[in-house]
Amino acid sequence: MATQGQVITCKAAVAWEPNKPLVIEDVQVAPPQAGEVRLKILFTALCHTDAYTWSGKDPEGLFPCILGHEAAGIVESVGEGVTEVQPGDHVIPCYTAECRECKFCKSGKTNLCSKVREATGVGVMLGDRKSRFSINGTPIYHFMGTSTFSQYTVVHDVSVAKIDPKAPLEKVCLLGCGVTTGLGAVWNTAKVEPGSIVAVFGLGTVGLAVAEGAKAAGASRIIGIDIDNNKFDRAKNFGVTEFVNPKDHQKPIQQVIMDLTDGGVDYSFECIGNVSVMRSALECCHKGWGTSVIVGVAAAGQEISTRPFQLVTGRVWKGTAFGGFKSRTQVPWLVDKYMKKEIKVDEYITHTMTLGEINEAFDLLHEGSCLRCVLEMHT
Amino acid sequence: MATQGQVITCKAAVAWEPNKPLVIEDVQVAPPQAGEVRLKILFTALCHTDAYTWSGKDPEGLFPCILGHEAAGIVESVGEGVTEVQPGDHVIPCYTAECRECKFCKSGKTNLCSKVREATGVGVMLGDRKSRFSINGTPIYHFMGTSTFSQYTVVHDVSVAKIDPKAPLEKVCLLGCGVTTGLGAVWNTAKVEPGSIVAVFGLGTVGLAVAEGAKAAGASRIIGIDIDNNKFDRAKNFGVTEFVNPKDHQKPIQQVIMDLTDGGVDYSFECIGNVSVMRSALECCHKGWGTSVIVGVAAAGQEISTRPFQLVTGRVWKGTAFGGFKSRTQVPWLVDKYMKKEIKVDEYITHTMTLGEINEAFDLLHEGSCLRCVLEMHT
Ligand SMILES: NC(=O)c1ccc[n+]([C@@H]2O[C@H](COP(=O)([O-])OP(=O)(O)OC[C@H]3O[C@@H](n4cnc5c(N)ncnc54)[C@H](O)[C@@H]3O)[C@@H](O)[C@H]2O)c1
Ligand SMILES: NC(=O)c1ccc[n+]([C@@H]2O[C@H](COP(=O)([O-])OP(=O)(O)OC[C@H]3O[C@@H](n4cnc5c(N)ncnc54)[C@H](O)[C@@H]3O)[C@@H](O)[C@H]2O)c1
Ligand SMILES: [Zn+2]
Ligand SMILES: [Zn+2]
Ligand SMILES: [Zn+2]
Ligand SMILES: [Zn+2]
Repeated sequence: MATQGQVITCKAAVAWEPNKPLVIEDVQVAPPQAGEVRLKILFTALCHTDAYTWSGKDPEGLFPCILGHEAAGIVESVGEGVTEVQPGDHVIPCYTAECRECKFCKSGKTNLCSKVREATGVGVMLGDRKSRFSINGTPIYHFMGTSTFSQYTVVHDVSVAKIDPKAPLEKVCLLGCGVTTGLGAVWNTAKVEPGSIVAVFGLGTVGLAVAEGAKAAGASRIIGIDIDNNKFDRAKNFGVTEFVNPKDHQKPIQQVIMDLTDGGVDYSFECIGNVSVMRSALECCHKGWGTSVIVGVAAAGQEISTRPFQLVTGRVWKGTAFGGFKSRTQVPWLVDKYMKKEIKVDEYITHTMTLGEINEAFDLLHEGSCLRCVLEMHT
Repeated sequence: MATQGQVITCKAAVAWEPNKPLVIEDVQVAPPQAGEVRLKILFTALCHTDAYTWSGKDPEGLFPCILGHEAAGIVESVGEGVTEVQPGDHVIPCYTAECRECKFCKSGKTNLCSKVREATGVGVMLGDRKSRFSINGTPIYHFMGTSTFSQYTVVHDVSVAKIDPKAPLEKVCLLGCGVTTGLGAVWNTAKVEPGSIVAVFGLGTVGLAVAEGAKAAGASRIIGIDIDNNKFDRAKNFGVTEFVNPKDHQKPIQQVIMDLTDGGVDYSFECIGNVSVMRSALECCHKGWGTSVIVGVAAAGQEISTRPFQLVTGRVWKGTAFGGFKSRTQVPWLVDKYMKKEIKVDEYITHTMTLGEINEAFDLLHEGSCLRCVLEMHT
């Protein structure tokens, strides 16, 4: 391409300061260096992790930065030594890398990869510990190794999943975070078996994907729990068979669920990020085997607690990041499943807007009617 | 036997009140009713759970009662309908029953059995909700469905493991609790694989059995952690390869262990009953896969806590009761392993005394030099 090796100036939504509206700026995006890939981002969705860091509550948040991590695009150019993708490839950037060489990747026990983590955790690229984004010479930090709220971004090659070029990027961008996380929490982390009774706390995108995953795994009952009654109707389409609103009950919600299920559920999933709900989710599990998976991300400094007797009597407490999926290997597989209509994606998209409307899009995130809002990046 | 169908009067150590010395009394032991078995207890060891209930700190403790749950004996007589054991059989009474019929037993996922739990939890027998022990008409509560601090006791048939009559009862009584719990925590609950790095917090009987089980499972490093330096020498014989005394370090013990192990252990076991150590045991686990098993029993009302991020990044928090072993099926198998010299038992016995010396034996429990003290019941 004509832009290869050149600095690209393009539009990006910059978070200059915590909690201040994002500003659409002309940003300079440097060419990819060794082991790096520059992407043209075509579509990005918004996720609560973006909102959390933007809010300033994330003690590791760095400003100014370019947020965004649930997106799809096309490879514009590649740096030295990059062999697995080439310009023109359709890709999903992944905040969970997969180098296939580190202790984590080789363990066969986790999808977390340590290769680029220390750089992405502090908003820079691994090679030179610098950012590829700048505005008139002022560097702008990367975010989660993805920074998809920019028309062009630079990522590490270990963070790029190459997907079927026939897949609609305006849909499959969602597989970069929320939907993938929910499905994987069920399939990889909990390993729900046919006939299981499942409780899902929080019926946003992640919780609905958990329900969908549980249905596919053959769960016999999928109990959805949310404080917003409006969530219930939509949730039926994702497999939820029963609804409980904690506000309708005097008893603690864990007791309500144990009563409903003759002693508790086989699997529960916390998809909210509320530490007190995390405890309820554990304690509504069946004695002897019930497993609870924490999916929601709690605010910094908050702690979970329970009586150890809950675990001594057989309950298991786990968590999941990116649903336990190996990003480069398995995101393309999820895209294929979507193309074969084996998993939903379109149904999670309730709004579409443009990059210029990103602040309004963030407002929508707090409205119950919104699951995912997808931004078109080049209109 | 001549005693069959008769009330037996024998010696037992009675806990009349919390925290008051046990009193050796003449106790009347009624004949076993349907589904019950009367045992002649030959040897019993003391365990911390006895001491805990005796102390009065257990809110579910009932007085007067006959404590004791780690023992071996011979069937004296059986009640109506009891088919799996008969007078003369050598047995280990088990506080974890195994009925093979309840939801728990049939789940294939747990060793907890619900059949007699509601009766044993309140110190009585299931059939008539009464005690079989009395002193001049005053009923004395059962404890854990075992009450082995008596020369004769009555237990439910689902709580009796029939063992090889050639096994020395003065040794294998230990398989009724501590040793079994430690081995099972490793083999059944954690499922430690060859090459694993293991941390064991607390080097009492349970912790040493964890070390032994980990060695048998092929662990490459077994790090023992104890605040008592005297524990270290003995622990080597049980497989511990390295020792850490938290008192020798300024840093939190979880950090010390992570530094020693390039990021944390694969498996950790809390064998103390201290909720703050339970947290350390979780947090010294390796990101991505480290699994921590709570074996120690904390005092009532105490809670464990951690940041949910510990679980979201792949650590797993579990617990174990009786090491996950199915009592009637697997205790005899452990006895066989002992007879084949595949597991240690003798090495955990540091003291032997008589029933009459039981108060002195409890004093010993608090001494670092004591692992298990076995009481001869009929001298
Ligand atoms: N572990 C991971 O890898 C990962 C990945 C993506 C998202 N997440 C996290 O998952 C969580 C859910 O994400 P989402 O996009 O679905 O969020 P969302 O805000 O769309 O959904 C949350 C739902 O929880 C409900 N809720 C709030 N408080 C509740 C309570 N006390 N009881 C019951 N329901 C309650 C809300 O009404 C809403 O329906 C967030 O914390 C997000 O950060 C984690
Ligand atoms: N889950 C079960 O089914 C089950 C069964 C049996 C026993 N238990 C429990 O297991 C625990 C251990 O039993 P045991 O008989 O081995 O006890 P023990 O008292 O012989 O051993 C405990 C060890 O922990 C050490 N210790 C104490 N505080 C410590 C600290 N802060 N850091 C490091 N080490 C410390 C002591 O020095 C001692 O060596 C008890 O809580 C007991 O109730 C549980
Ligand atoms: Zn996200
Ligand atoms: Zn890696
Ligand atoms: Zn015990
Ligand atoms: Zn049972």
